[in-house]
Amino acid sequence: MTTLLHIDASARGINPAQDRHRSLSRQLSKAFVDEWLARQPGDLMIRRDVGLAPPPAVSQNWIEAAFTPPERRNAEQENVLALSSELIAEIEQAEVIVLGTPMYNYGMPAALKAWFDQVIRVDKTFTFDLARGDFPLEPVFTGKTLVMLVSRGEFGFAPGGIREEMNHLETHIRVAARYLGVARDHLIAIEYQEFGDDRHSQSIAEAFARIPKLVETLQESSAAGNS
Amino acid sequence: MTTLLHIDASARGINPAQDRHRSLSRQLSKAFVDEWLARQPGDLMIRRDVGLAPPPAVSQNWIEAAFTPPERRNAEQENVLALSSELIAEIEQAEVIVLGTPMYNYGMPAALKAWFDQVIRVDKTFTFDLARGDFPLEPVFTGKTLVMLVSRGEFGFAPGGIREEMNHLETHIRVAARYLGVARDHLIAIEYQEFGDDRHSQSIAEAFARIPKLVETLQESSAAGNS
Repeated sequence: MTTLLHIDASARGINPAQDRHRSLSRQLSKAFVDEWLARQPGDLMIRRDVGLAPPPAVSQNWIEAAFTPPERRNAEQENVLALSSELIAEIEQAEVIVLGTPMYNYGMPAALKAWFDQVIRVDKTFTFDLARGDFPLEPVFTGKTLVMLVSRGEFGFAPGGIREEMNHLETHIRVAARYLGVARDHLIAIEYQEFGDDRHSQSIAEAFARIPKLVETLQESSAAGNS
Repeated sequence: MTTLLHIDASARGINPAQDRHRSLSRQLSKAFVDEWLARQPGDLMIRRDVGLAPPPAVSQNWIEAAFTPPERRNAEQENVLALSSELIAEIEQAEVIVLGTPMYNYGMPAALKAWFDQVIRVDKTFTFDLARGDFPLEPVFTGKTLVMLVSRGEFGFAPGGIREEMNHLETHIRVAARYLGVARDHLIAIEYQEFGDDRHSQSIAEAFARIPKLVETLQESSAAGNS
């Protein structure tokens, strides 16, 4: 059995009544997990919706609590870290993280960054040791797969594209996700949403068409012991 | 008279009683504005602390309200945009934006990203016109100066550095700030905070030493009509 963590970061829902503002990244991630479970219905899907329920930004109290050894934390400090611990437990259980996210202002939605800031935590998801020299951080978890299902209003953000240098979405997520034990990642991105033209329709069609093959590949890899 | 907007994004304060967790970026931005006002006490300093009071992440209601023409918005929609309008008014007034921010997980703190997501808003800070072709967005404001005063736990994030590819802080801020009318920017960064060694002490000393000269340069430039 494979355990997946399905995260959505869009502020938008997928209610058909809100057609003009329906989330494409949510539709993509839903298509992915539907396909996955259709083929492997016994797998476990953990759900975390940071778009509809954004975690709070970390606070001074959060930082002090995180850097206080567990045995010395008071009840208030445990409380301020409770959500962080819950979110980290979800990551720990998951072999595959399925992340649906839009690009907001050339990077992560604030809600998704708040999630990363809550879960990248010393002695929980990474260890810190100056004996390692100039690279003192190491992730605690290993071998996880990250699937990024993305929607962008503009286009040309891939390597070699006209907006490559403006892209701080999956490029940033990859750097941060290393500290969650992500060893490999996959990206499917819809572009041109703001243009609403044929290029957008084609981008949507291509993105959804890629999902079954990606699910199949990951499930075969997982069955072979390389989730 | 010059109007400045002083923003801090760190979750940490600068209370000396919290010495172990005092914010370096706040100390840097405070040194900058203190130096500025010591030399030009008549200037106006607008204060916005997103680190201590993070703006909410944008919601579906926020997006729908922002894309509703002002004359068709209901009271609830005006209300959901009220903070955004207030934050944008602060930017509009300012010729110089002084931004103190730490690097959290290789990018902006979630609270700062929430601020950007609140202030980059159609027909307020940017216009959108498909007649412009593949680059349909243009900023409304022009000619602003951005001063980024940064602290990072690790090092080597500058161009050519060993962590250049991991840097999604000022590189991302520059891209987003274009839509606030930022025409030029300056960066002073403290590094090595997690190492706490001589390199960190030297980085702190060099950063604070650069502030008076930067203030002087910007004030001379402002007096010459190029803030």
